[in-house]
Amino acid sequence: MAKDKKSGKKSSSPTPFSEALRADPGTDLASIDPRSTPGFDGDKDAGKVALDALTEPVSELQERLFAESRAGGTRSILLVVQGMDTSGKGGIMRHAVGAVDPQGVQITSFKAPSTEEQKHPFLWRIRNALPTPGMIGVFDRSHYEDVLIVRVHDLVPKAQWSRRYGQINTFEQGVVDQDTTIIKVMLHISKDEQKARLAERLDRPDKYWKFNPGDIDERERWDDYQQAYQAIIDKCSTDAAPWYVVPADRKWFARLAVMNLLHEHLQQLDPQWPEADFDVAEQQARLEKS
Amino acid sequence: MAKDKKSGKKSSSPTPFSEALRADPGTDLASIDPRSTPGFDGDKDAGKVALDALTEPVSELQERLFAESRAGGTRSILLVVQGMDTSGKGGIMRHAVGAVDPQGVQITSFKAPSTEEQKHPFLWRIRNALPTPGMIGVFDRSHYEDVLIVRVHDLVPKAQWSRRYGQINTFEQGVVDQDTTIIKVMLHISKDEQKARLAERLDRPDKYWKFNPGDIDERERWDDYQQAYQAIIDKCSTDAAPWYVVPADRKWFARLAVMNLLHEHLQQLDPQWPEADFDVAEQQARLEKS
Repeated sequence: MAKDKKSGKKSSSPTPFSEALRADPGTDLASIDPRSTPGFDGDKDAGKVALDALTEPVSELQERLFAESRAGGTRSILLVVQGMDTSGKGGIMRHAVGAVDPQGVQITSFKAPSTEEQKHPFLWRIRNALPTPGMIGVFDRSHYEDVLIVRVHDLVPKAQWSRRYGQINTFEQGVVDQDTTIIKVMLHISKDEQKARLAERLDRPDKYWKFNPGDIDERERWDDYQQAYQAIIDKCSTDAAPWYVVPADRKWFARLAVMNLLHEHLQQLDPQWPEADFDVAEQQARLEKS
Repeated sequence: MAKDKKSGKKSSSPTPFSEALRADPGTDLASIDPRSTPGFDGDKDAGKVALDALTEPVSELQERLFAESRAGGTRSILLVVQGMDTSGKGGIMRHAVGAVDPQGVQITSFKAPSTEEQKHPFLWRIRNALPTPGMIGVFDRSHYEDVLIVRVHDLVPKAQWSRRYGQINTFEQGVVDQDTTIIKVMLHISKDEQKARLAERLDRPDKYWKFNPGDIDERERWDDYQQAYQAIIDKCSTDAAPWYVVPADRKWFARLAVMNLLHEHLQQLDPQWPEADFDVAEQQARLEKS
């Protein structure tokens, strides 16, 4: 809405989040302020009100998408969530995705690949977790780890990981061709904010379980990770499946932004309630007698 | 709480839902009023307030259970939900289970078995869907369909389905022995209430997709189904895994009751935040320097 004010447009048609947050190739990650709130000019309280107000419309659209699939529809949504440790992936799952009917959502958390998974190409386990028709699939980490942590630590030779960008683009194009809308979100936090969040995990006994000494080892490679994130934006933000960079130092904004991205994409799909495939009056008469 | 009034006890210690709703063998299903609200003497508005008030304590207990598993804990919960068509299984998923962090919940909906599933013993697909440590598994329908619809329609010979009650008890005992707490809920509605709910699906174009003419065929076997439900209470309500009959003509009560059953069982498990398995001060010093 800030943009609208500057251009003098009425705030009744604010910039959609999918426009304000879209990161095309060449977008400079370092130039995006992790505390900014693009697409929204309210404060934290206004943000929470706006998030709550989205629950009902998103829920109805999700149910329509699900209903459509029961009548043979093939469309689905895949929300991919990436971000540094403590960037708030869990909060997105709980407070944004968690507002949607759990029957319509499939969350998959990708950890380090198991021995079984390592025997297969890196996209194998991803393909197995794609959403079925009518569903909203959510990936907590994803195939992008195979060009993030894998690149930073050279877990496979460079020749191998550098080919993966193209393989990912081909794969995602295929997924989109199968009627799945892909929404890729990078939760963008600052190094200072990560420090504060790790410190909290070390201050509170109810947060110890979320901390791992390895988190600090990864933190020490901060710049390498930022380069690796820059690379996925430059190489894998496509028209078929663009990346959205969500400033995430303010948790409330990140949740609001992801929920809006979901809402805007569902609106664009505009799923409709299926027609009855039976004679309504006939069934009403049968029911009456039963 | 009604019971407490009669006995003159203070309402400050109301009857737990797990006591008020427990259906031991011999409990006569037909004698339970589907509009009653055992364990709760408030009205619909009070019920909604009470349900909302449970979200936070259930969420914390769920997170503790999950955290415990990260430190090697093996405990989990399995909530089994059964009931006639329109008894409100979907509403339980959405409004009770849906209040819990989706990262801690695994919902499995059991439909008619696939060709692949039919090649295996009936408990095979159930075993594959059991909750992993720290998780709350939820079954929307379950292995009990194999002694409900299968019995009513004699989909396998009687000699075969009649052996299943014992097989189920053995199976469930094994699951409990693996540290999974089983909560089995039967949503108990009246035939009249089902008629009203089916009529609504035929009245509203946004509900057509939930209706199937076969639903009326099943309704015509109402008494057979009630007998089959009576049989699972008589034969499969065990100390290891008792059945709870939840009167479900009032949707708000059914949701409140299931959420309370979950809460009471989590309270009994009383999961604790794990101790740090690292030196906190040492990690704080490392973080400070990073």
